Amino acid sequence: MELFRGLEVPALAEVMAVALIRTVPRHTPLFHQGDPAQHCHALLSGGVRISQTNAAGAQVALRFIGAGEMFGSVPLFTDRLYPADAETVADSVEIRWTEASLRELITRHPAIALNLVTVIGRRLMEVQDRLREVTTGRVEQRLARALLRLAASGKTSDAGTALAFPLTRKDLAELSGTTLHTASRTLAAWEKRGWLSSGRAQGRSRITLHDQAALAAVAEEGRE
Amino acid sequence: MELFRGLEVPALAEVMAVALIRTVPRHTPLFHQGDPAQHCHALLSGGVRISQTNAAGAQVALRFIGAGEMFGSVPLFTDRLYPADAETVADSVEIRWTEASLRELITRHPAIALNLVTVIGRRLMEVQDRLREVTTGRVEQRLARALLRLAASGKTSDAGTALAFPLTRKDLAELSGTTLHTASRTLAAWEKRGWLSSGRAQGRSRITLHDQAALAAVAEEGRE
Repeated sequence: MELFRGLEVPALAEVMAVALIRTVPRHTPLFHQGDPAQHCHALLSGGVRISQTNAAGAQVALRFIGAGEMFGSVPLFTDRLYPADAETVADSVEIRWTEASLRELITRHPAIALNLVTVIGRRLMEVQDRLREVTTGRVEQRLARALLRLAASGKTSDAGTALAFPLTRKDLAELSGTTLHTASRTLAAWEKRGWLSSGRAQGRSRITLHDQAALAAVAEEGRE
Repeated sequence: MELFRGLEVPALAEVMAVALIRTVPRHTPLFHQGDPAQHCHALLSGGVRISQTNAAGAQVALRFIGAGEMFGSVPLFTDRLYPADAETVADSVEIRWTEASLRELITRHPAIALNLVTVIGRRLMEVQDRLREVTTGRVEQRLARALLRLAASGKTSDAGTALAFPLTRKDLAELSGTTLHTASRTLAAWEKRGWLSSGRAQGRSRITLHDQAALAAVAEEGRE
């Protein structure tokens, strides 16, 4: 788990002793945008969709959280309100700590605070990259990058890399800052070329990437 | 200074004892995108423009740093490469610490690590908001929000709030993810209504906001 990397076994035992663990079926809300933030959350298995409601009242996917990743924990150190909604997209096991437990753990093991800086710092850089892509890049480039980012937490076999989460085409459009129409058209074109395939289950696509090199070329060059 | 908030006087004396301080004239590069990151930087006075070069080779403004703010310090905890260029936009006084000094200070005063989490966490939330605005909001809304964010570090007098940095219209276009043409047209319309005024000096605008309530209404509602 990224948050407790480098900790010795006795320290990890302390971490687990104060952890709250629960299994959560898919499509369960974990917290809502604007609620008071009370826990540091992470995922042991499954997947969580982080989304925000915009001024027009529409939900926009912001990030997908996979096993081992932290979420919803930044507001404990800032304005104390969850900035987004979190909902499971698969059956999941959540692990969380109260704010008091987390602060006590950090006091005893300051390495946790440095891990927090690393995790949040990486996300800051990633979101800055996405912001730059959205304001200057081409749609194909952004969509290819969104797929490659999701593939990093996917499962690789001989058939390719299956993305860890079931995603709608709307999710992918939102993650890459484009319209549903453009995302669907581009994904269909790439599927035709054999770069990826998608199987549908419960209204969501299970996407498998077959040619990450081709997608990386689009992501890097912005040319097809 | 946000990074050392809450520290006692003896701890602050330690912080200052290992700090490197230098005065830097305006238009001086402080570091370049891709260079190895070796310091934690902050600004005692003046202003710094943080920008990235996109795939097409164009510079895009990402953020402006004012007095008391940290910059260029996240890569010490992630991939160890500066993700952006930093250049002074006014005569400035920079304060910085080597990575070894910063880590030593954090070991002795873990509160610094929690302050780092707070600073980086706030920026993450701000960039996520900007990303959501860019993908779903209207241009006027984004421009109004960019101006209000800059006003937070500005100087308020009877005449209004003067932004802390001299900015080009291109800077403002980039910060709000729009074209120079649209940014200029919108700013001119707002100037005509008396919401702001801009004086030019050395090719850059010194913008003063006269009606933050009107801009806040645009920022919130997305309507003019």
